[in-house]
Amino acid sequence: MIDLIQLRRELHRYPELGFTEFRTAAMVVKMLTEMGYRVIYGKDAIEGSARRGLPRTEVLEEAYQRALREGADPEIVQKMRGGYTAVVAELEGMEAGPTTAFRFDMDALPITESALDKHTPQATGFRSEHEGIMHACAHDGHTAMGLALADRLKDRQLAGKVRLLFQPAEEGVRGAYAMVEKGMLDQVDRLFCLHLGVGVPSGHIRGAAAGFLATTKLEARFTGISAHAGASPEEGRNALLGASTALLNIHALPRFSSADTRINVGVLEGGTGANIIAEHARMIIETRSADEATNRELERRVRMIIEHSARMHELQAEVEVIGGAIPIRCDLELAALAVREAGHIPEFTCAEVVQDSAALGSEDASYMIRRVQEQGGLATYMIIGTQLSAPHHHPGFDIDEAVLEPAVNLLERLARTMQ
Amino acid sequence: MIDLIQLRRELHRYPELGFTEFRTAAMVVKMLTEMGYRVIYGKDAIEGSARRGLPRTEVLEEAYQRALREGADPEIVQKMRGGYTAVVAELEGMEAGPTTAFRFDMDALPITESALDKHTPQATGFRSEHEGIMHACAHDGHTAMGLALADRLKDRQLAGKVRLLFQPAEEGVRGAYAMVEKGMLDQVDRLFCLHLGVGVPSGHIRGAAAGFLATTKLEARFTGISAHAGASPEEGRNALLGASTALLNIHALPRFSSADTRINVGVLEGGTGANIIAEHARMIIETRSADEATNRELERRVRMIIEHSARMHELQAEVEVIGGAIPIRCDLELAALAVREAGHIPEFTCAEVVQDSAALGSEDASYMIRRVQEQGGLATYMIIGTQLSAPHHHPGFDIDEAVLEPAVNLLERLARTMQ
Amino acid sequence: MIDLIQLRRELHRYPELGFTEFRTAAMVVKMLTEMGYRVIYGKDAIEGSARRGLPRTEVLEEAYQRALREGADPEIVQKMRGGYTAVVAELEGMEAGPTTAFRFDMDALPITESALDKHTPQATGFRSEHEGIMHACAHDGHTAMGLALADRLKDRQLAGKVRLLFQPAEEGVRGAYAMVEKGMLDQVDRLFCLHLGVGVPSGHIRGAAAGFLATTKLEARFTGISAHAGASPEEGRNALLGASTALLNIHALPRFSSADTRINVGVLEGGTGANIIAEHARMIIETRSADEATNRELERRVRMIIEHSARMHELQAEVEVIGGAIPIRCDLELAALAVREAGHIPEFTCAEVVQDSAALGSEDASYMIRRVQEQGGLATYMIIGTQLSAPHHHPGFDIDEAVLEPAVNLLERLARTMQ
Amino acid sequence: MIDLIQLRRELHRYPELGFTEFRTAAMVVKMLTEMGYRVIYGKDAIEGSARRGLPRTEVLEEAYQRALREGADPEIVQKMRGGYTAVVAELEGMEAGPTTAFRFDMDALPITESALDKHTPQATGFRSEHEGIMHACAHDGHTAMGLALADRLKDRQLAGKVRLLFQPAEEGVRGAYAMVEKGMLDQVDRLFCLHLGVGVPSGHIRGAAAGFLATTKLEARFTGISAHAGASPEEGRNALLGASTALLNIHALPRFSSADTRINVGVLEGGTGANIIAEHARMIIETRSADEATNRELERRVRMIIEHSARMHELQAEVEVIGGAIPIRCDLELAALAVREAGHIPEFTCAEVVQDSAALGSEDASYMIRRVQEQGGLATYMIIGTQLSAPHHHPGFDIDEAVLEPAVNLLERLARTMQ
Repeated sequence: MIDLIQLRRELHRYPELGFTEFRTAAMVVKMLTEMGYRVIYGKDAIEGSARRGLPRTEVLEEAYQRALREGADPEIVQKMRGGYTAVVAELEGMEAGPTTAFRFDMDALPITESALDKHTPQATGFRSEHEGIMHACAHDGHTAMGLALADRLKDRQLAGKVRLLFQPAEEGVRGAYAMVEKGMLDQVDRLFCLHLGVGVPSGHIRGAAAGFLATTKLEARFTGISAHAGASPEEGRNALLGASTALLNIHALPRFSSADTRINVGVLEGGTGANIIAEHARMIIETRSADEATNRELERRVRMIIEHSARMHELQAEVEVIGGAIPIRCDLELAALAVREAGHIPEFTCAEVVQDSAALGSEDASYMIRRVQEQGGLATYMIIGTQLSAPHHHPGFDIDEAVLEPAVNLLERLARTMQ
Repeated sequence: MIDLIQLRRELHRYPELGFTEFRTAAMVVKMLTEMGYRVIYGKDAIEGSARRGLPRTEVLEEAYQRALREGADPEIVQKMRGGYTAVVAELEGMEAGPTTAFRFDMDALPITESALDKHTPQATGFRSEHEGIMHACAHDGHTAMGLALADRLKDRQLAGKVRLLFQPAEEGVRGAYAMVEKGMLDQVDRLFCLHLGVGVPSGHIRGAAAGFLATTKLEARFTGISAHAGASPEEGRNALLGASTALLNIHALPRFSSADTRINVGVLEGGTGANIIAEHARMIIETRSADEATNRELERRVRMIIEHSARMHELQAEVEVIGGAIPIRCDLELAALAVREAGHIPEFTCAEVVQDSAALGSEDASYMIRRVQEQGGLATYMIIGTQLSAPHHHPGFDIDEAVLEPAVNLLERLARTMQ
Repeated sequence: MIDLIQLRRELHRYPELGFTEFRTAAMVVKMLTEMGYRVIYGKDAIEGSARRGLPRTEVLEEAYQRALREGADPEIVQKMRGGYTAVVAELEGMEAGPTTAFRFDMDALPITESALDKHTPQATGFRSEHEGIMHACAHDGHTAMGLALADRLKDRQLAGKVRLLFQPAEEGVRGAYAMVEKGMLDQVDRLFCLHLGVGVPSGHIRGAAAGFLATTKLEARFTGISAHAGASPEEGRNALLGASTALLNIHALPRFSSADTRINVGVLEGGTGANIIAEHARMIIETRSADEATNRELERRVRMIIEHSARMHELQAEVEVIGGAIPIRCDLELAALAVREAGHIPEFTCAEVVQDSAALGSEDASYMIRRVQEQGGLATYMIIGTQLSAPHHHPGFDIDEAVLEPAVNLLERLARTMQ
Repeated sequence: MIDLIQLRRELHRYPELGFTEFRTAAMVVKMLTEMGYRVIYGKDAIEGSARRGLPRTEVLEEAYQRALREGADPEIVQKMRGGYTAVVAELEGMEAGPTTAFRFDMDALPITESALDKHTPQATGFRSEHEGIMHACAHDGHTAMGLALADRLKDRQLAGKVRLLFQPAEEGVRGAYAMVEKGMLDQVDRLFCLHLGVGVPSGHIRGAAAGFLATTKLEARFTGISAHAGASPEEGRNALLGASTALLNIHALPRFSSADTRINVGVLEGGTGANIIAEHARMIIETRSADEATNRELERRVRMIIEHSARMHELQAEVEVIGGAIPIRCDLELAALAVREAGHIPEFTCAEVVQDSAALGSEDASYMIRRVQEQGGLATYMIIGTQLSAPHHHPGFDIDEAVLEPAVNLLERLARTMQ
């Protein structure tokens, strides 16, 4: 029997960024295999070319080597080399029935974890071993829950199949799409996605989260010609002039009456020295809208601004999608089921199907949900409340671990309940 | 015998802007014809499609009607309707010889003339009758000199031909090019261009002016789509966003190591009201360089910025050349001749062939000079000094009329001297 | 008895822009006085310094002279000279009771009216006599309704007072605020504002319009130093660089999570010629938000951008409020009353208290409504449906005049009903 | 006796960036001390607070540790810790006489040296041991020459004193100013600065280099407030909007009629991720002009643009001078002396005092030259020609080492010649 808290702390100590979850995913594969699941991973579980915002080769390799040093099973992890860190496990129940899937994300954030004594992971000795990387969004808890759920269900007292999806690179909304493209969401009848926290208090369950925005994350690269800024400025083609023009004009794109929008150029970097006309510049841009078509139109306009900001200064520009998500429309009957089942668990004192809420941000589970729904299945995105020590993505973020046990109880009930 | 001062004052009272010099040019035609010159004018003297920065039809027509009201000979001026206000007159001397040409510009400026008592035209009663228009660059004097010279030479005591060029629209460097294109500078052996004032003191002659810059004047028009800024901003295509982006980026074009440059967006206008996304915007731009190729490269870059500033916002852009000039390289032997002849005129106490000087601005006589030189002739641009009451293009500008008589004496000597 | 259609057509023929409604307002004063109302107008009805977006003195004077030429009563109109074109009329009923106010706007738009035969005013002979100005927003109908209502009520069969507010300069949201500041909305118990059309079909009444946005209209003027762009560009201080920088950065202000916003620089004009560094530039800007505080914050940021865009280039900048409005929150009991009374009028086949709707734009009646509510009164803004031949502000705009009679019937019932 | 080529190659193998020349400077101190010079170094030779563009503490410390690992004398180098890498050595001749100073720069560039076989340092085994750092501007040669000269002069057969200045951080024009501020150029009667190569062919000497530009290098840091770009963009203060606005407007500063200018924002970096409003941005800017006052005015305008681009978006901005130089006016009698002495050295087949040339870039020896001249001394900047394998600052740059011996011969003659 799995010690949930112990397991979550182990995962917390070894946080890994998106597409470099080598140690985590290898551990997941190992445990699920030992439990008797049919486990798919590596290139079989994710479409390589559909991964968005993949880190550079050196980064992938360095993280891979680190995982090896930190005890990842060499045989398993070798199949993930190069950023193939998705894991899917399936188990057939004793009886026939529908396929129920659960999605858990595994990646961490580029945040240096708090070393203050009041921060529980520091005080209790499971602070991140990877300086500058931190589980500050509860994915350690999600992954532990997934493994504990697997452990509960290995008795196969199920009508139908259960499929467990362990996703890399949720941060930056990068990994889910490539698992969908690989077919990992096909033939699913019921899909439960979930998140701990997100402003919902301890003891509360929300069956259907609302307010997720469509989003696109783009990286634009401008290439010009360097030249000596004193001796021959006219021989240069200034990548920073193009990038700055793009930045201002992207922010100046109109508001839309069709739906609320957001736009941000979050990163701009270019140039090498005072006396050189900058040859290179890169920008990271994000668009968002509650409405998918509006977000697409916004993306189209951003691309046009980039192209012509570049051509204006005789630069080359390339644009790459490095992340994306679509809005989520939960199936309320599935949400209602979750609420009903939560009623059987004493720790959950309050459960609601849905609550109008402001924009929550974006989630690439949206692609999974859409695929299931397109194929006639049902899907929902649940929020399981827990007391947080600090906001998500904060160095002092921590969950109240007491939520883990009842949360797994709920998932177990959902897996076994075929109503 | 012509009263030079009287004539200059008459011209001063009826100033006319570029390509609307209907009254002036009609008077020039009439007088030259009466003197016995062969006079070419209207569409015969200027290539219509090569005129740059032509005013709008209504403006041309209004000025035409005004000229009629103010006594222009209807038969003559009718041939100039629509902005064909160039005049060329030729006279063959008694003896054979080379063709000597003189160029005089006729247009005035959109400046409201001073009404102060200390301003001589006001005090003496020949202030502009056309409110808002003024001869503030001595072209009234130039035209008067041209007519007086014609009067002197009508005796045909010449070896060779004399050709007198009365040019419209020098301001904005717009008219000369179209006269050259019509062939008005062909078969000229010697060309004298001139300007009164320009920083040279009374009694001084400079035989060869230096420092003229190549220049291009462009008008850019951006066309987008208007939309209600509150109800549906995204349906608009904002011409002002495109134009402002172009303006900043045009000014941000690099310095050139090949030659000194200048760049200016002098006018930007667009939009109709607070709550409408601007559908139209227009800009007037000028590039300059001491080096013709550099100016051409600068113009190329300006056009590229305009095009892509427009396309970035899905606007249409059109660019039109509304003026231009090239550098001037005077033939020093002709300049030396002018200096020598000036030595015979007591009012000219000092004459120099050339003097290094800072940039003077630009002159479209440059096209005439280039054409003559290309065909093997000689050409120069002389400055005839005169005391000014205020700088060129100033509401209080006036010349010292005492310069007119000796200046015509000099031109007469140059016309008759075949050394 | 007033011929409503005849009166509306008369008003339609003589459209006048905001603060120049001299002929219209003088006619209103004359008629109301003759009906026995106590009429307040000129400087007594509007706070001069609180008028926003007042035209230039010459424009005001020219329109004043035109009104005189077109038959405005000289004695009356003389008190309006300089743009004091508000009129307020009051009548005390036979019995004591509350004060009920109605607001009518009188101004027209700078639009050239359609001259197509299919356009009724053209076909029927009441097209605008003022070329380039047009009643394209039904204010002619509103004013006619106000006068007809006055005529009905002159019998004083009322419990309480009626106050009729004839407002100048609603277009650009400029005039209402100054009437409020003059105290014209004080001691009002019930205020009915209204508009014909606005997307509501013939026969329909909406008792409470929703969706009005807070807005501010600003004019910014940048003043630099002109200089010759070729000879001494560094001596200039370029107003167009400052203005273009402001334009881009104003459009680039962030979206707000607090409320939807709009922003537009609708006009930008500056500079005089290609070869002069621009000394002056002016911009017209509008901000909007459903939330008043958000609109104020947006205005604050716009002002900051203007100030520092100017100072960046050593320019002076001035910013003036030329229009503004706040959101409207109708009192639903008053709206319900209107719906109830409409039920007694056969032409109104459908009436609803309120309907959720997208943003309608902005209305400065909002200041009047706010003032009444602040003093404990009730207020609403009604839409009276009518078939339109073309959208508001379109050259082919026209109302179906059949709405006028039942609309006045409704207002009369509201004036007399003291429920 | 020093093996010049051997020494230069040793220096070449251990290139160090500006203010981290720990190994180089320690070696210089050691050798000069052994030769009997009075050696001043560390905080005695350079004014700490006047150093421009000092690297961050970690960078300084890391380079310091590397120098220790690579054999720098611990006792010597310890006094240089923190970037005090200037060395000044003095020797008094046998006879009384003036003080003659020579300046040698020691720093390398952040360039990865060519590893091609055709690149001599690679082929011959003295390619850089510090990957990414390279002597690509001949300062290894300069330093070797300085040491060889010291060795020649240690016999003290001189009339007067010799002072040898070994300067850190010439690249980026950062180090000379702080040595001047420390008084290292006081009481110098004759100062010889020099550079190998710079377009002058082998066998040629130019006694007085021309064309150095005044320059200022600035680093600007913008600080705003980060915020979630989706959830609350309006709470952010976007450092990248401010920086991009500054970048465009800095490039758009006018050309000057007073002197040719250059301007470049060579680096812009800011922001951390797609979904975060950027809190920080930094820019590196350079201004240049042949005229010192014009460069100062340009710097003033750049600072103003930075300040107000920041304040426009409610950012903080700091600007720091990280480099600078002034024009150089060589004393031609000293240049003539160098030419004369070069005539005694057979390898120098051609020597000229000065040659008009285009802008060479900038040199902070200019501050040393100015100080000497201000105190009544003479100074010049010589170019000693040598065949280059690739342009300065190129990965394949190399000098022809045959120049070193005759170059030192020339310096020796200049040191000993007191005429």
